[in-house]
Amino acid sequence: MFTGSAPATPMSASAPSRPRSSRVYLNHHCVFGGRELVVIAGPCAVEGEEMLLDTARAVRQAGARMLRGGAFKPRTSPYSFQGMGEPALEFLAAARRATGLPVVTEVCDPRQVERVVEYVEMLQIGARNMQNFSLLAEVGRTCRQVLLKRGLAATLREFLLAAEHIMAQGNQAVVLCERGIRTFETASRFTLDLAAVPVLKEETHLPVIVDPSHAGGRASLVLPLARAAVAVGADGLIVEVHPAPEQAKSDGAQALTFEAFADLMRQVDRCAAVLGRAAALPPLAEAET
Amino acid sequence: MFTGSAPATPMSASAPSRPRSSRVYLNHHCVFGGRELVVIAGPCAVEGEEMLLDTARAVRQAGARMLRGGAFKPRTSPYSFQGMGEPALEFLAAARRATGLPVVTEVCDPRQVERVVEYVEMLQIGARNMQNFSLLAEVGRTCRQVLLKRGLAATLREFLLAAEHIMAQGNQAVVLCERGIRTFETASRFTLDLAAVPVLKEETHLPVIVDPSHAGGRASLVLPLARAAVAVGADGLIVEVHPAPEQAKSDGAQALTFEAFADLMRQVDRCAAVLGRAAALPPLAEAET
Amino acid sequence: MFTGSAPATPMSASAPSRPRSSRVYLNHHCVFGGRELVVIAGPCAVEGEEMLLDTARAVRQAGARMLRGGAFKPRTSPYSFQGMGEPALEFLAAARRATGLPVVTEVCDPRQVERVVEYVEMLQIGARNMQNFSLLAEVGRTCRQVLLKRGLAATLREFLLAAEHIMAQGNQAVVLCERGIRTFETASRFTLDLAAVPVLKEETHLPVIVDPSHAGGRASLVLPLARAAVAVGADGLIVEVHPAPEQAKSDGAQALTFEAFADLMRQVDRCAAVLGRAAALPPLAEAET
Amino acid sequence: MFTGSAPATPMSASAPSRPRSSRVYLNHHCVFGGRELVVIAGPCAVEGEEMLLDTARAVRQAGARMLRGGAFKPRTSPYSFQGMGEPALEFLAAARRATGLPVVTEVCDPRQVERVVEYVEMLQIGARNMQNFSLLAEVGRTCRQVLLKRGLAATLREFLLAAEHIMAQGNQAVVLCERGIRTFETASRFTLDLAAVPVLKEETHLPVIVDPSHAGGRASLVLPLARAAVAVGADGLIVEVHPAPEQAKSDGAQALTFEAFADLMRQVDRCAAVLGRAAALPPLAEAET
Repeated sequence: MFTGSAPATPMSASAPSRPRSSRVYLNHHCVFGGRELVVIAGPCAVEGEEMLLDTARAVRQAGARMLRGGAFKPRTSPYSFQGMGEPALEFLAAARRATGLPVVTEVCDPRQVERVVEYVEMLQIGARNMQNFSLLAEVGRTCRQVLLKRGLAATLREFLLAAEHIMAQGNQAVVLCERGIRTFETASRFTLDLAAVPVLKEETHLPVIVDPSHAGGRASLVLPLARAAVAVGADGLIVEVHPAPEQAKSDGAQALTFEAFADLMRQVDRCAAVLGRAAALPPLAEAET
Repeated sequence: MFTGSAPATPMSASAPSRPRSSRVYLNHHCVFGGRELVVIAGPCAVEGEEMLLDTARAVRQAGARMLRGGAFKPRTSPYSFQGMGEPALEFLAAARRATGLPVVTEVCDPRQVERVVEYVEMLQIGARNMQNFSLLAEVGRTCRQVLLKRGLAATLREFLLAAEHIMAQGNQAVVLCERGIRTFETASRFTLDLAAVPVLKEETHLPVIVDPSHAGGRASLVLPLARAAVAVGADGLIVEVHPAPEQAKSDGAQALTFEAFADLMRQVDRCAAVLGRAAALPPLAEAET
Repeated sequence: MFTGSAPATPMSASAPSRPRSSRVYLNHHCVFGGRELVVIAGPCAVEGEEMLLDTARAVRQAGARMLRGGAFKPRTSPYSFQGMGEPALEFLAAARRATGLPVVTEVCDPRQVERVVEYVEMLQIGARNMQNFSLLAEVGRTCRQVLLKRGLAATLREFLLAAEHIMAQGNQAVVLCERGIRTFETASRFTLDLAAVPVLKEETHLPVIVDPSHAGGRASLVLPLARAAVAVGADGLIVEVHPAPEQAKSDGAQALTFEAFADLMRQVDRCAAVLGRAAALPPLAEAET
Repeated sequence: MFTGSAPATPMSASAPSRPRSSRVYLNHHCVFGGRELVVIAGPCAVEGEEMLLDTARAVRQAGARMLRGGAFKPRTSPYSFQGMGEPALEFLAAARRATGLPVVTEVCDPRQVERVVEYVEMLQIGARNMQNFSLLAEVGRTCRQVLLKRGLAATLREFLLAAEHIMAQGNQAVVLCERGIRTFETASRFTLDLAAVPVLKEETHLPVIVDPSHAGGRASLVLPLARAAVAVGADGLIVEVHPAPEQAKSDGAQALTFEAFADLMRQVDRCAAVLGRAAALPPLAEAET
């Protein structure tokens, strides 16, 4: 598919290098690339212990299989809220213990990686760091699952080569995330490139999920884009949810309330069924992890 | 929503100007903006009478509610096939008589409009002509329904203002079509901007459909993008179908076979059901128009 | 250079089809593609006879070799000023008689062409009509020089194929104009792609000029972009000038005053000298045409 | 100029925060933001001691005021040449001693910064790291001059906020570099946005230079883009030069030969003169630093 100078070395991420799709396993309720979709939900930034716990319980109740929450926030302006840092990691671990949901958080600096792996199951590489090759190599040397977001101006070929930077260090557990690219259109925050999902499915064995929250940039667009992402064939979603979006310290405009998220889960579950898949984690009888 | 210099005159296309969504009526099986989605299907270009009739029967059988076919083809190069011209209009009218499907075809020149309206129910304005204001005015002076495609680099605000150029002449029966915008990504032919659908639904009362064929640019992307378009809330689809895509005189790479189109109809029908809608026209007992 | 499906028929616009650069001749002071640059100047829209005459005299005095002025204005909104129409053509012809400057004006509709050729030396195809193939064919059947502007989202290959649509009708006197493409950056109105000039010089024998006014979108950017355009190797410029920019009926923000234009001419003349060329028309002893 | 949420805290980079343009001083022949332009030249990657010394001597002879050379190369593919690393830093220091030219090299990892500052005068932040905020903060804590390249999809507002991330740590010696943005056009490697220079000059007191090599992506475009950059008002250039471009280990297509660079210096010097500036460092009687 991709033209241009192909790498001489066979790529770990390319579809022919494996007989079938890879699965990235977090726990037996949370496997990227399997029949069940993985919906990750939680606040943009961890703002406190209570708000995180409330959110974790609400999203688990609604069927999410994984918790997100930012401890270190890369922000366009140095004067914006940069995240709570290490205390947020403690809160994330506590939320995991309380709900059984595995946790993903973003790492922004190779020097953070060693500490963050002690707290979370999955490391996120943000869009602005997709070609931060030192950081990619560092997470590639861990045994943690990695959620790699597509850069704002990255071609799909560059996206796969970024995954390759991780995998070349030995870590094969990479999940790709389409989150919108930058175009001339400003009616949505970014332009969600849903064709990326079937194209990546042809090119790579890695699971592919979609972030409708950053792409849309406002709550009213998140639900329709989430349905579309599931219908196009994504293996999961990552969605921002906040107990009180209008008070959020970052990206409040795109955060869903608990109710809106529960509605989203019902709708994407039905879209998933069209493809013979399921999205929502059924209510659990006991705390399982 | 849209910032910048708002027009002083109230816009006909804007949402507040009407109490609810408009419906654009072709016949009682084919109403844009209602509960039933309208799937338009047919060849990129009409290449002969028989191929058109075969295609029309096959797409009707599969549940399409409308037939497309190009008589006049605007082509990037002057040395490419430019369409059969007037004979193609006769074939389109014959296919309508044989199948009962209403017909849409593109007009490229204001001088064609007078003649084309005698043959077809709906006039298409192609993406490259979205700001051909003479042509917009000319179709605005007819009593035919208009399918207006978004320009490759048109913002949604400019798209709505192009519709306004038609409506300002008195013709309110405009259906908008998202067909992909031009971005840096070349893995798909264009980047399908599905957020355009919910954004337009907030901004205008006009029906909105999606063209997954031109956006994807190859057959393998058409089915997933069609599912996504329905899931995001589109009021219909326009899909290229050809009896033998590998022999098509234009855009063969993105044309579906009859079988692939029938599969698409089954899948989009199930996606539509998630939203309480239906896509496929049920098999008809007799020829109804 | 350009990859992808090359046209089977040799292209008239391509560089190898001619031994050296073409010249497009208006009069002996105004030859596109020669040692002297051609600076075209005038108002965005003709707003009256006096304002046009004043502008024509001022820009000739400053060294412009040609007059521009819009009679028919394609506008994004149907409720904006659409130009004076035919009376403006009379005023343009009168300004030519008074100053000796050849005149260029935009045509938007194939049905206008026959009339407009009676008034002006050169027909402009605007950016939004670059792929209005009926219009291209119509101007291709005239014996008038054509100024073809690049579309907002047109690749350079598509730009040359648009020129080919004109030349395939027999008219070889085409001048290309880079005027900025649409990108994510909004600090300037469009993104002026100055690399287009040397790329086009490699690919085609046709003259290439630059429009710094539409690209910049505000007066303060016009002068630096004009210098850059000349330094990159353009064969000329087209610049918007208005007696009172703050009162202009269209695009006033980007129009230069007479004084600012005279300053621009002095500066671009010195940039042209670096490349062994000249920009400004020397003051004429008598009215010569 | 820029709309949207302005930072509450006054920005260090913004124009009104200083009475006039800042100057970033390397030595008395090399001051960014003064009357003399600063042309930085050298190989994309340091490939050995001899090639670097030869290049340093050639570019100084031709009038360059500063030497560039990559020790750590961020590459899209993990299987491409990644730079020589630390030995390259030694070679750069040796080349400085031999020629008196100050040296700039890229840092990619916050953990490299402490070591690299011992070898070079100026630290480069590459386009892909423009929003690597850990790295920005780290160079912001040094006393070295910083060359900050614009990201491929960064708006000018985001570019200035990236500079602010450095300046907020106390380091005010930031030079901005426009190096092309990613657009749909592929005839040049990136689209050089020369309007960025006058826009940035309105918005910030920081010096602004241009990289015509990465923007053009091939040698034939570097010279015209360099002339245009100087004519638009840039405070300098950064140009890739290699003793044998066809054998370069990275980016050979865009590297100039020594002869081509000497020609470039002559031409940009004449363009600079139009603006009352000078580009080329005059031949030095003795080794001065």
